[in-house]
Amino acid sequence: MDKKFVYADNAATTALSDTALEAMLPYFKNSYGNASSIHSLGYESKKALEQARKKIALAINARINEIFITSGGSESDNWAIRSSLLMSNAKGKHIIISSIEHSAVFRTAENLEQQGYEVTYLPVDESGKVSPEQLKNVIRDDTALISIMMANNEIGTIQPIKELCKIAREMRVPFHTDAVQAVGHIPVDVRDLNVDMLSLSAHKFGGPKGVGALYIKTGLALPPLIIGGGQEKNKRSGTENVPGIVGMAVALEEAVGKMTDNIKKVTTMRDKIVASVLQIDGATLTGDPVDRLPGIASFLFSGLESKVIVAELSKVRICASSGSACSSGSTELTRALSGTSMIIAETENDNAESTKYGALRLSLNEHNTDEDVDYIIQELPIVIRTLRSRKPSPLF
Amino acid sequence: MDKKFVYADNAATTALSDTALEAMLPYFKNSYGNASSIHSLGYESKKALEQARKKIALAINARINEIFITSGGSESDNWAIRSSLLMSNAKGKHIIISSIEHSAVFRTAENLEQQGYEVTYLPVDESGKVSPEQLKNVIRDDTALISIMMANNEIGTIQPIKELCKIAREMRVPFHTDAVQAVGHIPVDVRDLNVDMLSLSAHKFGGPKGVGALYIKTGLALPPLIIGGGQEKNKRSGTENVPGIVGMAVALEEAVGKMTDNIKKVTTMRDKIVASVLQIDGATLTGDPVDRLPGIASFLFSGLESKVIVAELSKVRICASSGSACSSGSTELTRALSGTSMIIAETENDNAESTKYGALRLSLNEHNTDEDVDYIIQELPIVIRTLRSRKPSPLF
Repeated sequence: MDKKFVYADNAATTALSDTALEAMLPYFKNSYGNASSIHSLGYESKKALEQARKKIALAINARINEIFITSGGSESDNWAIRSSLLMSNAKGKHIIISSIEHSAVFRTAENLEQQGYEVTYLPVDESGKVSPEQLKNVIRDDTALISIMMANNEIGTIQPIKELCKIAREMRVPFHTDAVQAVGHIPVDVRDLNVDMLSLSAHKFGGPKGVGALYIKTGLALPPLIIGGGQEKNKRSGTENVPGIVGMAVALEEAVGKMTDNIKKVTTMRDKIVASVLQIDGATLTGDPVDRLPGIASFLFSGLESKVIVAELSKVRICASSGSACSSGSTELTRALSGTSMIIAETENDNAESTKYGALRLSLNEHNTDEDVDYIIQELPIVIRTLRSRKPSPLF
Repeated sequence: MDKKFVYADNAATTALSDTALEAMLPYFKNSYGNASSIHSLGYESKKALEQARKKIALAINARINEIFITSGGSESDNWAIRSSLLMSNAKGKHIIISSIEHSAVFRTAENLEQQGYEVTYLPVDESGKVSPEQLKNVIRDDTALISIMMANNEIGTIQPIKELCKIAREMRVPFHTDAVQAVGHIPVDVRDLNVDMLSLSAHKFGGPKGVGALYIKTGLALPPLIIGGGQEKNKRSGTENVPGIVGMAVALEEAVGKMTDNIKKVTTMRDKIVASVLQIDGATLTGDPVDRLPGIASFLFSGLESKVIVAELSKVRICASSGSACSSGSTELTRALSGTSMIIAETENDNAESTKYGALRLSLNEHNTDEDVDYIIQELPIVIRTLRSRKPSPLF
């Protein structure tokens, strides 16, 4: 094909880093031992596992024994939330989450509601932010957990986790953050943030799919979600996915090592896209203009369904997203959009329309190029024009 | 090093199959899309995922929509057991498991006991078998689940799952089997067995670590363990580990395709080891002499701790196992050994001694060679003699 191919869906998943793949390969075919085996091949795996854990700990300023390997962000989130409520010192059956959490948190909370727990869904402001003041007001004596994401997967807004944590700490409520979109992309320091639990997922920062971690602060006696052979100090059973864990650690080390440059590069590309796309009639940027992930640009186009835009972009070989790729439908997008007032640029949209039509998400990372950006800037207006000419809109 | 290297710990984990690795590679670097994304790269992943599911279904004679991907055997076991008890039509708070289950089942049941459930631990006979008659006697009106493993990971005994299932079906109790050691090694036909749920794990049959599946019979409304984006038809959330799933499917297809030859080859090697090892004074074969996995040979050596034997074998570059590598300690081994009378050859051991010293497990697969077998047969008697000369035994 002659057409350029642009992958602008890095918030959904990333290509595996070359360095990570290279680091993984020996553990598939040569050093393939079970990390719990007490022979030479087992010891090699165990060593690789512990070196990987060290790298992961270092990347988020955790202690080595505070890193617990999981199968990914969803498992980490489910584990943190469900098991927090089962801790012997849990203060009650009330939990607080934001209204724009990822489904792994949001739907888990909804499920807990059906099981007799009580959930407060904190609203967010027009930029998608949770207010520390508002958090303070909803904490109760029986609040067992607060879970607020570090950065939103659709609109890219970064939450004031440190301030939110401070309040949680004062009120002695454990605090979990889903940092799946943040880790490897912006600085994450668990000690500075003072969080109790933090979820991360390898495939969002150039690591392999099917592996993630949960940071658990020393002293927090979180019961396991998956019980069995007693791996991960009895906190998460199952034969360790050594190649995957090694790949995660190497990718994270790489992402953190290049973070300053990557942020600069990706932010510049994103801002160029934002500036250009906002020239299109009826286009609106969602999320916070400043406190946002470097890579995420998310837009509303009045009168146009984002799914249709994504399909049309796919025809010109641009991979973008409508809502969250993590979600089977548009429920989650609808939630993030309707949870915010959504308007940071001038628009005639109201929430009902945002909810109905959804937002187009372009998510970049350091492997995108200026040519990618130019191609997006060239093709997107054509796509929008084509779609508008095809379908009469109430606004145009 | 000059010394031969023999890996005889295939029941702990296997090397990744070359075919599987080759099939996985494109999904790391090229077709790396999120299987839920609605663009070209997403569709490629989705297609690969569904082809893999089809292969897995075919391998165990399931319907395609009865295969649900997990992160491995432990998650599958935890999910099947915990969620069965949460089904709206669960008959009560009583479950039945065998006394020699893998920790992922056994410890999950123990954990449920602490949460107010009642567990019956079915004893096994001297060969490690559960009796269908005995199962019938312990089923109650409030029995919500029966979970009995297909083949034991330490002693290799294969249970009469079809007969056990028949009883469960008559009494209208859902039946789960942990078939982690069986799938890919002996024929497994879920329709013929008539099980409701079956756990499998890729890395036991040449697939990658960190991926497995749960077969769930059509009509069984098992709630999810991990909630979120709604992947796997809302039954198991989390971005699909496409390379891992492809690797699992290809490895399983390969294992099933070569099964007849593999069983013949592996059984011959195992029998040669058994015949030779039983010549050693004070050596006893554990498990059932006939209904056992082709690859597993497990022995007691009177007066010798199996862990010490494993360490000594490791010095001559033979990888073996003491108890289960899936377990951090020897608890599980102790359980499997003390659950059986353990004696199928002449021995002066009694259960107390088996429990104290544990068994040496040599586990082979189709990649082992006659040279491997000869090397084991040559070295093991020397190791045993050396250890006995070092440490005075009560028997010798």
